[in-house]
Amino acid sequence: MDVWRTAIAGSDATQMWLRGRPIGPLMRSATFTDAIVLVHFGRLPSPGERRLLDAILVGVIDHGAGAPSCAAARLAASGNRQSISAAIAAGLLAIGDEHGGAGANCMELIAEGEALARKDGLSIAATAAALVDRAIQTRVRLPGLGHRVHTADPRVQVLFDMAGEEGLSGTGIECVRALEREASARIKPLPINIDGALAAVLYDMGFPSSAGKFIFIIGRVAGIAAEVAEEYARERPMRIRIPVEYDGEPVRTD
Amino acid sequence: MDVWRTAIAGSDATQMWLRGRPIGPLMRSATFTDAIVLVHFGRLPSPGERRLLDAILVGVIDHGAGAPSCAAARLAASGNRQSISAAIAAGLLAIGDEHGGAGANCMELIAEGEALARKDGLSIAATAAALVDRAIQTRVRLPGLGHRVHTADPRVQVLFDMAGEEGLSGTGIECVRALEREASARIKPLPINIDGALAAVLYDMGFPSSAGKFIFIIGRVAGIAAEVAEEYARERPMRIRIPVEYDGEPVRTD
Amino acid sequence: MDVWRTAIAGSDATQMWLRGRPIGPLMRSATFTDAIVLVHFGRLPSPGERRLLDAILVGVIDHGAGAPSCAAARLAASGNRQSISAAIAAGLLAIGDEHGGAGANCMELIAEGEALARKDGLSIAATAAALVDRAIQTRVRLPGLGHRVHTADPRVQVLFDMAGEEGLSGTGIECVRALEREASARIKPLPINIDGALAAVLYDMGFPSSAGKFIFIIGRVAGIAAEVAEEYARERPMRIRIPVEYDGEPVRTD
Amino acid sequence: MDVWRTAIAGSDATQMWLRGRPIGPLMRSATFTDAIVLVHFGRLPSPGERRLLDAILVGVIDHGAGAPSCAAARLAASGNRQSISAAIAAGLLAIGDEHGGAGANCMELIAEGEALARKDGLSIAATAAALVDRAIQTRVRLPGLGHRVHTADPRVQVLFDMAGEEGLSGTGIECVRALEREASARIKPLPINIDGALAAVLYDMGFPSSAGKFIFIIGRVAGIAAEVAEEYARERPMRIRIPVEYDGEPVRTD
Repeated sequence: MDVWRTAIAGSDATQMWLRGRPIGPLMRSATFTDAIVLVHFGRLPSPGERRLLDAILVGVIDHGAGAPSCAAARLAASGNRQSISAAIAAGLLAIGDEHGGAGANCMELIAEGEALARKDGLSIAATAAALVDRAIQTRVRLPGLGHRVHTADPRVQVLFDMAGEEGLSGTGIECVRALEREASARIKPLPINIDGALAAVLYDMGFPSSAGKFIFIIGRVAGIAAEVAEEYARERPMRIRIPVEYDGEPVRTD
Repeated sequence: MDVWRTAIAGSDATQMWLRGRPIGPLMRSATFTDAIVLVHFGRLPSPGERRLLDAILVGVIDHGAGAPSCAAARLAASGNRQSISAAIAAGLLAIGDEHGGAGANCMELIAEGEALARKDGLSIAATAAALVDRAIQTRVRLPGLGHRVHTADPRVQVLFDMAGEEGLSGTGIECVRALEREASARIKPLPINIDGALAAVLYDMGFPSSAGKFIFIIGRVAGIAAEVAEEYARERPMRIRIPVEYDGEPVRTD
Repeated sequence: MDVWRTAIAGSDATQMWLRGRPIGPLMRSATFTDAIVLVHFGRLPSPGERRLLDAILVGVIDHGAGAPSCAAARLAASGNRQSISAAIAAGLLAIGDEHGGAGANCMELIAEGEALARKDGLSIAATAAALVDRAIQTRVRLPGLGHRVHTADPRVQVLFDMAGEEGLSGTGIECVRALEREASARIKPLPINIDGALAAVLYDMGFPSSAGKFIFIIGRVAGIAAEVAEEYARERPMRIRIPVEYDGEPVRTD
Repeated sequence: MDVWRTAIAGSDATQMWLRGRPIGPLMRSATFTDAIVLVHFGRLPSPGERRLLDAILVGVIDHGAGAPSCAAARLAASGNRQSISAAIAAGLLAIGDEHGGAGANCMELIAEGEALARKDGLSIAATAAALVDRAIQTRVRLPGLGHRVHTADPRVQVLFDMAGEEGLSGTGIECVRALEREASARIKPLPINIDGALAAVLYDMGFPSSAGKFIFIIGRVAGIAAEVAEEYARERPMRIRIPVEYDGEPVRTD
């Protein structure tokens, strides 16, 4: 078999390291958030970046046991108490393009918008209008805009304020704001949601669009773990019954 | 690295085989159920065993979308439509001692009962009485007995009848029936459930208690897969909302 | 919460059923493979269809512990012996477009070929040539053709022979054979592999392309389960070490 | 259906909160590590506790692609590129009592040791000697002691030093050190490993033994995510072949 190669972590008889940095000094000086950036992107964040990333990770950790990720984890915990990691994994598996994935898609849209603006010599506002036009014509939802429940998600403004304070507000936030303005004018009120906000902020820090997914997953796993712990502590095994109605072929009596 | 060793399947430039049997003839003559027995236990089932195993696999394939395994899979499918295997895996993760695991535990109880009966020269009925006594004293539930919903699970009698027809009814069925009789007399009506029935039948075919879990999992995965397909076909992404109530620390206003 | 609706399985106080068929008679007369078709497609297979489906399920159950699905399951079993379903799920998660997914993609290619042939009044052979041309130009691999290891997979001919014997050989097999002929003539020897063979046969039985994934998954889970059982029985926990080489940033000494 | 109840997170039309604390102020002032403690234990850590928890989370994030958790994730990523969360979940499923679980078990051993010491009026050192005696007699491995590779894990001393600096060194560290001393004297050199070190430190901060598993999982998921990202970026799909040798029944030729 070929040897597996990695540039993330290594060790020898006396040392261990992440991206070439010895683990001891890292443990002394780096926060968990620093290390997340280090293993993913090979560098440590600036203080302002760390603050924004902490805010994003805190913001996505959990917002209610009914989200598919939390509910799937609790159902798995209800039927299988032998493995904590199994229950957390079940929750993780509910995360995809439809749940937690809009951030990465929104980062790609921002990147496309910026490239278009540059190519055509347009403003971000004009480009956003073009992107909204296209979404209307192709009947595709704009990732990062719109809520089911919250009319104004309190997390959005906090993130944008913090980005401003840290001097890290750039094209990402400008673009998402322009998309919100244009879409709300032409379609219906479509406020920026948490996916759009974290997409804008991660984009302005220079992270690739895949970061939209990874950061959401890493943050949410901590919340899923807490949901699993609460399920174990508060509920009896197999307690959960979902109300189901059969509406298929009539039952045969022959 | 050490080479990995396996006795299950192999191949060379022109041949493939399972447990030493070339795949071509197997595909021609073996059913899927035959092959399940072959890869797990290294032999093919007799016609009667095959019939009973088919009955068990059919019997556990699905009994409603609200079971934790099916519901967890549908929640994962609702949030993550990119990977069918991810949704099925989420359902699988809900299977454990509390959901689908009572069969294996009941097989161990039967084995213990048979060993006790032999050691002490007792009848199975007397041994069952002793096991029920112990369960009452230690307040441990008897695996394989009792229902939440069904007062008489239609699958139980079918399995026992078929075992009789095939001449495969033995100590397992005798023991589970005795446990039902004793427990119902001393505790409350505790009819044999599907876990108890499949445990008895698998035991009487000579399978190890781990088969109680594997057979349930293999059968149920087929049903979970159908649930995932139905979720994709009938429901919109992220359609599922579980009603949740927050009952923790009051929200701070300072 | 809205009630969940399903047409797959249901039960009331005395009955249980799959697709409207009471479970008792099904357990008596249906094989596991019958029930797989029933829960997925709402009908029972003909005897010939059942025979072909059994052959496919037997054929994909396992072909070696080194496949990503089997190896991932064994690694999970090595680190987490508390949950059988967790180890099987880990194996399942390695199944995707790149592993086990070519069947579904090949079924879509066949459907496209048949539609093209009909639309343009061409023969399947001529259409296959056009599809190969396009694959060459777009540098996209043709799903269902080519092997890494086996020069002639013994499973392919068996499946095609059986389809002929059962009178179930149709456009699917014709199309895959034509693709093999054209691709091998213009690119390099590209024999039909198991994915291509099962795609052709499932297509000729009238199943939707998603069946290519579901059938593979359902069959393979049985093999993964056997791999997990063997890992538990033969190996010590945490026995597996993969040879890894660090090739990233040099270790800092400052 | 019963409503699901949770004390972790909630929201209404204008607010969202974790454990009663509004999300906006939390995002502004709490680190990710703070929020992990908050959702799990309902309180914020002290600065010293936060520093130690960061050190633990950084210390377990990754130590090489060959660990079962990382390798299983990379295998899943190799076969299934459609779902990032599926690959990460596969890695997570390899975490159990045998991989990442010794921390929780060691915390339970420390708790047992402290209870014994109190009950019998013994010193921690004397209790540790008794626990080592028992482990020798029952031939059970002492969780938290011993290495496969590293003779001295650099992370252990760093954690203990930091605990001393923060005034958080207590019975946990005392007990693990005593176990190391006694076990090394009577069995063989058995240095404290990372599981033992994090167990001691988490114990001394007053966390329940389940924290040993949750904290490991939360930290490791970030490393697994980086491994998956590297697999996507550096390797071709299905690149991985594990060397396997068939050693089962000879292939039949009849």
